[in-house]
Amino acid sequence: MTTTMPMLETYPRTIDLDRAKLAAAIEAINACAQACTACADACLSEEMVAELTKCIRTNLDCADVCAATARVLSRHTGYDANLSRALVEACATACRSCGDECAAHAQMHEHCRICADACRACERACRDLLATMS
Amino acid sequence: MTTTMPMLETYPRTIDLDRAKLAAAIEAINACAQACTACADACLSEEMVAELTKCIRTNLDCADVCAATARVLSRHTGYDANLSRALVEACATACRSCGDECAAHAQMHEHCRICADACRACERACRDLLATMS
Amino acid sequence: MTTTMPMLETYPRTIDLDRAKLAAAIEAINACAQACTACADACLSEEMVAELTKCIRTNLDCADVCAATARVLSRHTGYDANLSRALVEACATACRSCGDECAAHAQMHEHCRICADACRACERACRDLLATMS
Amino acid sequence: MTTTMPMLETYPRTIDLDRAKLAAAIEAINACAQACTACADACLSEEMVAELTKCIRTNLDCADVCAATARVLSRHTGYDANLSRALVEACATACRSCGDECAAHAQMHEHCRICADACRACERACRDLLATMS
Repeated sequence: MTTTMPMLETYPRTIDLDRAKLAAAIEAINACAQACTACADACLSEEMVAELTKCIRTNLDCADVCAATARVLSRHTGYDANLSRALVEACATACRSCGDECAAHAQMHEHCRICADACRACERACRDLLATMS
Repeated sequence: MTTTMPMLETYPRTIDLDRAKLAAAIEAINACAQACTACADACLSEEMVAELTKCIRTNLDCADVCAATARVLSRHTGYDANLSRALVEACATACRSCGDECAAHAQMHEHCRICADACRACERACRDLLATMS
Repeated sequence: MTTTMPMLETYPRTIDLDRAKLAAAIEAINACAQACTACADACLSEEMVAELTKCIRTNLDCADVCAATARVLSRHTGYDANLSRALVEACATACRSCGDECAAHAQMHEHCRICADACRACERACRDLLATMS
Repeated sequence: MTTTMPMLETYPRTIDLDRAKLAAAIEAINACAQACTACADACLSEEMVAELTKCIRTNLDCADVCAATARVLSRHTGYDANLSRALVEACATACRSCGDECAAHAQMHEHCRICADACRACERACRDLLATMS
């Protein structure tokens, strides 16, 4: 349903990054942002919400950082390697924190388990992309 | 790759909307936001950018409205039908404008054609969801 | 510290809206977005967080809608009155809901009182701007 | 008009950062985000838009990174120093790039001059905050 790769393929100039890894990163980041937004809200509706406040905060941060990162990676005009690298690093950091926090609740809450997996997949895709940036 | 439906299924309380239509809308909206961000950037790299400025602006607006709408629709705690309806209406309006504008450039620019399709699909998904809200 | 009005004054073409009301709306919307983000987090740190979940959700929605609205209103190229009107309406709706919800906790929580005021001011600025749009 | 400092003062727990520097950073970041969004649009309406495409792209990136950073810095619950540091670094990087690019057009375009100043102020506020984080 997404058109991430077709949009990369129709960009009129050259793209300085591996298109397959870039598309994989953008899709993993957008999927993670959605999962984190939904997990924050699901945590908010748990009876034990008082024990999930750190998870909610980490989810909100991760969603915000992912959203900004997906946008920056979707642009290629006047590419700035320094910014892309710094932001993808920050995104991987957010996913690591959020994945760890969600994993700690994964046995109690299925939404945290799904979200932890989305964070892990996103962190991996970010690190795969970073490896091609240096 | 996305986990929109699994996240809906693991939400711990009732959801006041049709889950299938809701998931379809969230996914179409997120796909549209990505396409619009990428199309704005692709237009920026066309030699004839001076003729694409309205398209770029409409793309940027549509991406922003879609991003906010996908987030609001991903939350179910303390559901507010008035806000959801007003925002999904605004999202459909943004997709209509952006789809029309991109369609006008679709024969010249393949990225505009793909983006126009994403906007049409998103507008349809928003209207399908709106129909279940009243 | 903000440069909202100077940026409006240096826009190279005509702007189809009252600049003073537009600048006032953008500033009130951005202030409201910040207050709502901070109020959601402050609620999350209250011992009685379980009684504030609807307030948190409404805060998050209001922040997202305000962020998108401030961006759309900061653009004037290829102005689309239909989208601006629909989005400012949705923003006023979000501020009304969030202002009401925060006001209900204003006596217990000073952050809710401050945030309710920011929402009221934002709703007013949105309605003032809407009055000039028709 | 903004309530950044009052919201910090009414946060119910301790905040691990210098409140004055934190408030200054949040305000500078939000002001920069608005200036960058408006500058991208103003560039889009210049007759010589073809020479401003890198400026537009840098403006859009900077606005997105600033928006995410302001939100993360507005949260204190379950504070994660690693993420805050990585993100404020990325924000300073974005402001440096955007400030340099806008400065290159400052003599031709007053909106670029104002935006360059906003980027410089934001980069400084980010670096001041970073200095207190280590």
